Amino acid sequence: MSIYTTPIFNINLTKMIENFNLLKKLSAPAIPAAVVKDDAYGLGAYEITQSLYQNGCRHFFVAHGSEGKIVRHAAPKAEIFVLQGIGEDSFEYFNEAKLIPVICSPAMLDFWHTHKIEGIRPAIQVETGLNRLGFKVADLEKLTSSELSEFSYVLSHLSCADEQAHFMNARQLENFHKIKQRFFANTPATLSASDGVFLGSEFHFDLTRLGAALYGINTAPYRENEMKNILELKAPVLQVKKLDKGEFVGYSATFRAPCDMKIAIVSIGYGDGVPRSLSNRGKVIFYENGKACYCPILGRVSMDNIICDVSSVQNISTGDFGYLINDDYTVDDVARDAGTIAYELISNLGKNPRFIRNYTA
Amino acid sequence: MSIYTTPIFNINLTKMIENFNLLKKLSAPAIPAAVVKDDAYGLGAYEITQSLYQNGCRHFFVAHGSEGKIVRHAAPKAEIFVLQGIGEDSFEYFNEAKLIPVICSPAMLDFWHTHKIEGIRPAIQVETGLNRLGFKVADLEKLTSSELSEFSYVLSHLSCADEQAHFMNARQLENFHKIKQRFFANTPATLSASDGVFLGSEFHFDLTRLGAALYGINTAPYRENEMKNILELKAPVLQVKKLDKGEFVGYSATFRAPCDMKIAIVSIGYGDGVPRSLSNRGKVIFYENGKACYCPILGRVSMDNIICDVSSVQNISTGDFGYLINDDYTVDDVARDAGTIAYELISNLGKNPRFIRNYTA
Repeated sequence: MSIYTTPIFNINLTKMIENFNLLKKLSAPAIPAAVVKDDAYGLGAYEITQSLYQNGCRHFFVAHGSEGKIVRHAAPKAEIFVLQGIGEDSFEYFNEAKLIPVICSPAMLDFWHTHKIEGIRPAIQVETGLNRLGFKVADLEKLTSSELSEFSYVLSHLSCADEQAHFMNARQLENFHKIKQRFFANTPATLSASDGVFLGSEFHFDLTRLGAALYGINTAPYRENEMKNILELKAPVLQVKKLDKGEFVGYSATFRAPCDMKIAIVSIGYGDGVPRSLSNRGKVIFYENGKACYCPILGRVSMDNIICDVSSVQNISTGDFGYLINDDYTVDDVARDAGTIAYELISNLGKNPRFIRNYTA
Repeated sequence: MSIYTTPIFNINLTKMIENFNLLKKLSAPAIPAAVVKDDAYGLGAYEITQSLYQNGCRHFFVAHGSEGKIVRHAAPKAEIFVLQGIGEDSFEYFNEAKLIPVICSPAMLDFWHTHKIEGIRPAIQVETGLNRLGFKVADLEKLTSSELSEFSYVLSHLSCADEQAHFMNARQLENFHKIKQRFFANTPATLSASDGVFLGSEFHFDLTRLGAALYGINTAPYRENEMKNILELKAPVLQVKKLDKGEFVGYSATFRAPCDMKIAIVSIGYGDGVPRSLSNRGKVIFYENGKACYCPILGRVSMDNIICDVSSVQNISTGDFGYLINDDYTVDDVARDAGTIAYELISNLGKNPRFIRNYTA
């Protein structure tokens, strides 16, 4: 018997590249750009970018200048766009790493005009219905034609592209066409993230921004996921014990055993980014003779531990590993059980410094 | 007007030390130990430990051996206990940093017996009702008296100590006394974390384990919080814009304007650890002439941005900062709005690498 205490997070870069290649094919002839913001959704911006760059990706999107600097180390000759744009607190990152700001407001454009960086043509974000960042038509009307022509890309973002039939898709597409035609007839355009890719070629324009789907998330949940799962998260059992009928489990005693049971204490918790909302709702998977056993989480998820019902697993002992994410229980499945989306799940999980983290190439 | 893009996270170490001193006084004569596991609940194990060590704290608890190594750098002569215990994957950390494992199971004790570290006396965790890690009475009965006497501390953990009147408190206290008397009459004991400190001196034994309350969390929510808030999280406004009656906001169009409004796009999102469950529920605070304006979050929290209703704020513009956490809207308040606990909130927030992070001493 072995004794382990540390959770293990495995990221499969080969499968990520397969996802990239499929999305690239679906996007063609649009340029496939990779979205590696938020530390590549927590999965490691440097490692993810390096793998994509080695496989031909030359366009990357981040949210912040500080992220762009990391991506530049892994992608020396790529175009790196920064979605939150540029400001006093991030200017140096742009200047050093030659990042392309996505200008999101008239005030930011004024800033850019007094802080231009040689050789950089910014992109511009326009508002088409999300009501997040971007120039409205009234803002664009105030720009001169020479100002309008200085942008390398015109960008907008869809709000409901994960619902194929949502009226907002057609509305935003129409708004984007109108704006493009009126102000940016000769400027390359980008409207879609992963979810927009699946809506069809009229949404692709000149460049698609591939994020969530690269990492295996189903961004078109109205159809079977065509992406490969790239993640495996497992944690060791620290103890297996009997739970007598009537005993309580975990903080606030939210689970009481209705019969004699067998429980396993698994060495992972919300301190590792496992959502606490999986309390009394999530599952841990154990394998016995190759067969998956779904073991319900009992009571509250605590900071460092999860307790689960392993009554159905014949042979289980200290040192065995339970799976929190894998091909049988994907990030979408876990997020569904946790009442959130896989984007938030992996963003929190991925930043945990106490995992043993492996990239399989 | 200034343009900023980056959220700022301020951690007030002076107030943390005030919390430590109050908890120390409440715990006396028990030794006040600090719980700095999970990167000090995300707030930075090195910096937090250093500050506590400089102020006299000499006992620390972490969850994993890898965390203990970091704490050792900041606390050269402290006793550092590791709650998840020791295993093959963490042995080297214990050996190098002279960490004290909390042995949680008979199997782990066997491991310890073949992997003893000179000069280290382990602690032992016993089960009193949480049904998480720890030896049960039947396990203890199998140990020889010489085995029982090798432990430096006997430890257990309360499940419901944040509810003063919960029957589990008395039950666990009684179980702990019985176990101590029968097996560990001469061994120093520790039962309570922050919440147990407020239950009264009979719960304190020889050492208290101070975590959440150090960081300002109210661990005794049945009374007014006696801890000082130590956190401030703020993010810049990237854009202020009109939202016309009938327009939608954010992903899946979950908010529709019932009248003409004014909105601000704030540069922070769930990618920064702000819970996505604050969608249509949380608040951002802006200050106008020193007066706090509570501005509701509209629509979904997205990865990098939050949209909020600033109709009530007369003067607001790009570059102003909105507050996500501060004395007026504490971690407990935010967690309540998000449907979780402050422990999970700060654990996720704290690990975000893209904040500008400041420690005020």
